[in-house]
Amino acid sequence: MATVVRARPLVAQAQSTALNIIDTDVHERAEMHALLPYLAPEWRKYITDFGWQPERLLPFAQFATGGLDRQDAKLPDGRPGGSDLSLLRSQLLDEYDIDYAVLTGWLDASALHPGWSEFKTALMSAYNDWQLETWVEREPRLLGSVHVNAHDPVGAAREIDRIGSHPKMMQVVLYFGDKAFGDPYYHPIFEAAVRNNLPVGMHHSENSPTALGFHRYFIEWHTLVPQVFMSEMVSLIFNGVFDKYPELKVIMIEGGTTYVPHLMSRADQQYKELRSEVPWVKRMPSDIIREHFRFATQPTEEMSAKQFLAMIDAVGSEDLFCFSTDYPHWDFDSPVEALPAGLPESLQRKIFYQNAQNLYPKMPALKPR
Amino acid sequence: MATVVRARPLVAQAQSTALNIIDTDVHERAEMHALLPYLAPEWRKYITDFGWQPERLLPFAQFATGGLDRQDAKLPDGRPGGSDLSLLRSQLLDEYDIDYAVLTGWLDASALHPGWSEFKTALMSAYNDWQLETWVEREPRLLGSVHVNAHDPVGAAREIDRIGSHPKMMQVVLYFGDKAFGDPYYHPIFEAAVRNNLPVGMHHSENSPTALGFHRYFIEWHTLVPQVFMSEMVSLIFNGVFDKYPELKVIMIEGGTTYVPHLMSRADQQYKELRSEVPWVKRMPSDIIREHFRFATQPTEEMSAKQFLAMIDAVGSEDLFCFSTDYPHWDFDSPVEALPAGLPESLQRKIFYQNAQNLYPKMPALKPR
Repeated sequence: MATVVRARPLVAQAQSTALNIIDTDVHERAEMHALLPYLAPEWRKYITDFGWQPERLLPFAQFATGGLDRQDAKLPDGRPGGSDLSLLRSQLLDEYDIDYAVLTGWLDASALHPGWSEFKTALMSAYNDWQLETWVEREPRLLGSVHVNAHDPVGAAREIDRIGSHPKMMQVVLYFGDKAFGDPYYHPIFEAAVRNNLPVGMHHSENSPTALGFHRYFIEWHTLVPQVFMSEMVSLIFNGVFDKYPELKVIMIEGGTTYVPHLMSRADQQYKELRSEVPWVKRMPSDIIREHFRFATQPTEEMSAKQFLAMIDAVGSEDLFCFSTDYPHWDFDSPVEALPAGLPESLQRKIFYQNAQNLYPKMPALKPR
Repeated sequence: MATVVRARPLVAQAQSTALNIIDTDVHERAEMHALLPYLAPEWRKYITDFGWQPERLLPFAQFATGGLDRQDAKLPDGRPGGSDLSLLRSQLLDEYDIDYAVLTGWLDASALHPGWSEFKTALMSAYNDWQLETWVEREPRLLGSVHVNAHDPVGAAREIDRIGSHPKMMQVVLYFGDKAFGDPYYHPIFEAAVRNNLPVGMHHSENSPTALGFHRYFIEWHTLVPQVFMSEMVSLIFNGVFDKYPELKVIMIEGGTTYVPHLMSRADQQYKELRSEVPWVKRMPSDIIREHFRFATQPTEEMSAKQFLAMIDAVGSEDLFCFSTDYPHWDFDSPVEALPAGLPESLQRKIFYQNAQNLYPKMPALKPR
């Protein structure tokens, strides 16, 4: 938890903040059996009879007091964080006076290996219906994401067309496993997102390796999580996804922000030297990134306002970063503590809500504070 | 080739420079048959009879006019760049008035998969003997590196003990493939390096994957090469290699420099949150990096002096970067063009020679200019 400086004053128990807040990364959690009523009988038996469970490649659990979750976000009955609407309301929405929070899910077939693709595509439909009924339609401040199975791009596109027009579905979400999504195989997903006027959120998973696999300790893997974000960005950019779909916007979720200046600089240099290999890419990668990518801020790294502003200067835009908490996970970023004190108010407004408003076409209007 | 600004004036044909220069990355090249005389007969047949060739995992060649090499560094008889001493003298040492150049090799078994380990260990001995006889002992300005087979750590240590005391052997070199060298399995190599008072140079290879493998285009892979450097650094740091071998110094070669600020910031944050998992690590990763790591500059990314100085400020030290050309490869960095104009002379001196002098205990004295 990045908790060094308090950016804005705390108001005793009710920590209300002066600015509007849109939280772009909140994880709701399903138990597998809760999805069964939303599945057709022919798929239900994959879980009830055959015992399917999502495969886990990370050879560790999360090395934190509550495992994956904040200890205080777990429920007395043993359910994990993000399982209960009233606790999420009190610990997140009410506690920090958050206007809207975008749910980013838990079970996403895109992070898994291909295999039983039709089943997993159906499972994502069940998940989306469960998500709407259990969370989004019960709490005005919660907004949804369309989960799909990227390994079945046509089925994924069908699901986006089925549910993407729901007024509270903000985006399509793809979790990464070990597949580079710039491959033309996956393009039907981006086409469907654009067709439905939805940005695509991308999130790593516990099945995302680093360049040298999963390493010996959790801290190694967790330090290197930004690699898979860089790999996906490079894959999307150099495979011409944004040249093919100029309206597409992508938000990278839960990789932090400090890898962006390096990637821009390195990718621009390589583009100058090697662009004849990818003639369909017409602009500098840093320009493509500034136009098409946004970045959810969590997990923030402790830095001074001067260092933070140097990072903004290095990426060349105040429009790229969107605040996120990652509630209920162990490295939750508090809205009142995650950003350094002393940032200009105009920049705070962009990060806390304006950049997200500009990214999500269906974001509801905010009450001015 | 990073060729935007000329840091120092060119003197017509004889581009001599005002400052001393130590080039920390120059690739000599052997043809396989040239190594045969240095191999014992029982190993020779692995090449002559069984037809062993180093495996290549990169599914591309280098997408540049001369392939891996500068077009003008290739020889009329078809031999690749780095095959001929007189051409290397004229194109590099004389052309840029380089005081000393550290040879970093071509064939390094550590980049390959384990397999036929004893043969590859013997092959590295042959390579080292060939390197000394063909290059190092024929040109006073050329300095050598001890190549080893990391997959046979005891054999590697034996080779370091055998040849590491040669007065012109500057370092042990390990090329990365897909193995994380912080694993205790590899520690005998670091122990032998320290025992022989040698730093360890680490270099990526064409067998180094990214987090998502090798991707669809060369430009993707080449943009993401710094990942494997970050992975190795994280592996060494969190597996306690520098806590176990406090005298060990490592120079990361051919990964560039701009990933370092990100990695320092991210690793420090993770250390603050997760250090109880690795209690043997006693200091902040950024402090370990500043004390134990150096970085060869090539391939530089075009930036202004202001941006370069911001990077120096971000890593918190002027002592980390050592100039390198990567001769004879296609993305060669010229000493007169690679760094931005307008850097303070004291910083230029550190990068062009003083940092390398401090890294390599056996670096010969430089003639003052």
